[in-house]
Amino acid sequence: MKPPLRIALAGLGTVGGGVVQALANPELSERAGRKLEIAAVSARDRSRDRGFDISKFAWSDDATALLKSEADVIVELIGGEDGIALDVVEGALKAGKHVVTGNKALLAKHGARLAALAEEKGVALKWEAAVAGGIPIVKALRESLIAYGVDSVHGILNGTCNYILTQMEATGRSFHDVLKEAQALGYAEADPELDVGGGDTAHKLVLLASLAFGTVPNQTHISVEGIKEITPEDIQFAREFGYRIKLLGIARRTAKGIDQRVRPAMVKTGTPLAHVDTVFNAVLAKAGAAGRYFFEGRGAGREPTTQSVVSDLVDIARGNLGAGFGWPAASLKPLQPSDPGAAMSAYYLRFEVLDVPGVLAEIARHLSESQVSIESMIQRGRSPGEPVSIVMITHETSQASVERALKVIAGSDKVRARPCMIPMEAA
Amino acid sequence: MKPPLRIALAGLGTVGGGVVQALANPELSERAGRKLEIAAVSARDRSRDRGFDISKFAWSDDATALLKSEADVIVELIGGEDGIALDVVEGALKAGKHVVTGNKALLAKHGARLAALAEEKGVALKWEAAVAGGIPIVKALRESLIAYGVDSVHGILNGTCNYILTQMEATGRSFHDVLKEAQALGYAEADPELDVGGGDTAHKLVLLASLAFGTVPNQTHISVEGIKEITPEDIQFAREFGYRIKLLGIARRTAKGIDQRVRPAMVKTGTPLAHVDTVFNAVLAKAGAAGRYFFEGRGAGREPTTQSVVSDLVDIARGNLGAGFGWPAASLKPLQPSDPGAAMSAYYLRFEVLDVPGVLAEIARHLSESQVSIESMIQRGRSPGEPVSIVMITHETSQASVERALKVIAGSDKVRARPCMIPMEAA
Repeated sequence: MKPPLRIALAGLGTVGGGVVQALANPELSERAGRKLEIAAVSARDRSRDRGFDISKFAWSDDATALLKSEADVIVELIGGEDGIALDVVEGALKAGKHVVTGNKALLAKHGARLAALAEEKGVALKWEAAVAGGIPIVKALRESLIAYGVDSVHGILNGTCNYILTQMEATGRSFHDVLKEAQALGYAEADPELDVGGGDTAHKLVLLASLAFGTVPNQTHISVEGIKEITPEDIQFAREFGYRIKLLGIARRTAKGIDQRVRPAMVKTGTPLAHVDTVFNAVLAKAGAAGRYFFEGRGAGREPTTQSVVSDLVDIARGNLGAGFGWPAASLKPLQPSDPGAAMSAYYLRFEVLDVPGVLAEIARHLSESQVSIESMIQRGRSPGEPVSIVMITHETSQASVERALKVIAGSDKVRARPCMIPMEAA
Repeated sequence: MKPPLRIALAGLGTVGGGVVQALANPELSERAGRKLEIAAVSARDRSRDRGFDISKFAWSDDATALLKSEADVIVELIGGEDGIALDVVEGALKAGKHVVTGNKALLAKHGARLAALAEEKGVALKWEAAVAGGIPIVKALRESLIAYGVDSVHGILNGTCNYILTQMEATGRSFHDVLKEAQALGYAEADPELDVGGGDTAHKLVLLASLAFGTVPNQTHISVEGIKEITPEDIQFAREFGYRIKLLGIARRTAKGIDQRVRPAMVKTGTPLAHVDTVFNAVLAKAGAAGRYFFEGRGAGREPTTQSVVSDLVDIARGNLGAGFGWPAASLKPLQPSDPGAAMSAYYLRFEVLDVPGVLAEIARHLSESQVSIESMIQRGRSPGEPVSIVMITHETSQASVERALKVIAGSDKVRARPCMIPMEAA
């Protein structure tokens, strides 16, 4: 049997604690063909009750002290795109130690450079836990979907948003009501902006795009819109049309570059992404001639995330190191962005208008002038002089055309509030 | 760069040809960190037009000749549970060559012994292509879902059956009609028994169970029922109850051993397996505290299967060898079977009866005497003296109880044909 793999954990929160407990199972060492041994741990508070005994591990309250330990691998579970997390990851790689991390923000910002450093030092940079919790999508894109390339990835990558949208649909309640409840239940952070604003999904999408297309992770060329503007009315209309609203991260090759976007989308009932509910995550990948792949699982939480960290550790123990982004670092290409306005889609449009004569004609005219043609329309309720909703589904058109029309329509004195536009996803 | 990985292909049919063409893409060698080089090929007919030039490869019409080649890896794509395929795989391992195979029948029969041989020789036995076509489920169970064990796997593992059931539902046509069409389209073999009788699903399930539970593949303790008895009427009733009928392979841990079965099941609309259509395959795995995982993709065909073979080859090139069944061969335990009759489930029952007074009372009494209680019942149409269908959904009960009741009911002179029973799957 090979010598033990010595592991140092930087961060002993939910996932760090999960890893300590999971590694106590001797089956993992049996599968790995060598003992998986925790050599040292680091966290801010040594005295906190974590439900397990940490006295047997070498301890430091300074994570960078782990760099001087005898560990073969550092598991970084601190978080943050810079600061101490970066010091630990970069320092570990420089010291010739393998790194396992769940830190999507750090990887989205520094991933390519860190992967090059790992490669130079002959060590692994593994990060299955950074995207889609327990789903082994990083492994799938790195090691499995490789013969025919990947044309697109569509992901439901944020459990908080998916929980909120699922609850809004089930109860008919508003975004703010459901968010408050999610916060009380611990499904949403006290400061929810990173989740509901789409930023967390964006970090994850940028990493998936890099794996899928062999490009340097790129956070510049991505359009991001969260779920804060979605109303129960939109969800209800979606259902009437046979769709459900999901926050998607989408990365796809187009003839003119790669399109990266995070936004709410209408997903057709009966297609795989439409049925991903509550805190589940999912990724749909189109892999050229090999067709569509779909992966679903828990997107967060102690055990799913721990499982991803543990599988990375066992990979390292077995000698399955691989390149951080699936390709030699020197082969990663800069991402050539497509023009976001050129993206083609059908759209759901909702206008809040005053119920006065001529309003529908005015909207239709502006749409027509921007070459946006209407497939179907619903005007619900009549209350003369009061605001009512007009909902339309367009034929396929460019995003720029719709945006141009909506800008003009928003200026009308008959239109209240900003019109809502949600693409219909054919995935 | 490491020396090339020399590959010998035994079998140049659809998938063998796909592998030759895929390996022509230099990106794969780039990802693997070494050249993937075809050293020799073997097939029965050298002159057949395969759409690519084979003159540059060393050729033999005897696959065992590859054992004497300089190849590092033999890819076995011949098929058959014994005979030449076994000679090639066993001979290759004995000669210290890695093996990649898509041969589920061979692995279900000889897998544990071959994995032990591979381990002894320090080489890999890889078989991603053997189960669920392009879906990387072997890798997921071997390398990813390892921290909390697996409690059950539910799979739609045969594209032919799934295509037939999907078409029966879409068109209302009979099994035999749709089978004929599937044969004409090339989706079903001239001799369809291995597919529609459930045997192919059984081979794959036995392999998944081995990976999931760390047990020796066991073909003895599995109950197998195919789709030949499913009628358009059953499919229509299923839809009315909010279910769809799918052929499932199911392996699960119970308190009293492992339950392996292949059978048509009612799967609730809105759950992941219910929406797997046409030639797609899928696997749902319950992984203890890490929760439910779902994987879907194309279950057969040139490119999906080629992708699985290629990913195994790249794994080998990278040095990711791993154990054939995810555990050291000596750790694989014999499978302790559960009592199939003890399995608990709700059931869909359909009786074809003569429309005469007392028939319903008689069926109800026999069910009650076997402690089977009825949740809902539909009797459609009235035609006194003629056969009509009575359909019932039972509460949860043991399989043995239902079978006992149906045996008695089948003996009634008011009941025509064998009653139909289909479990309702809660997965």
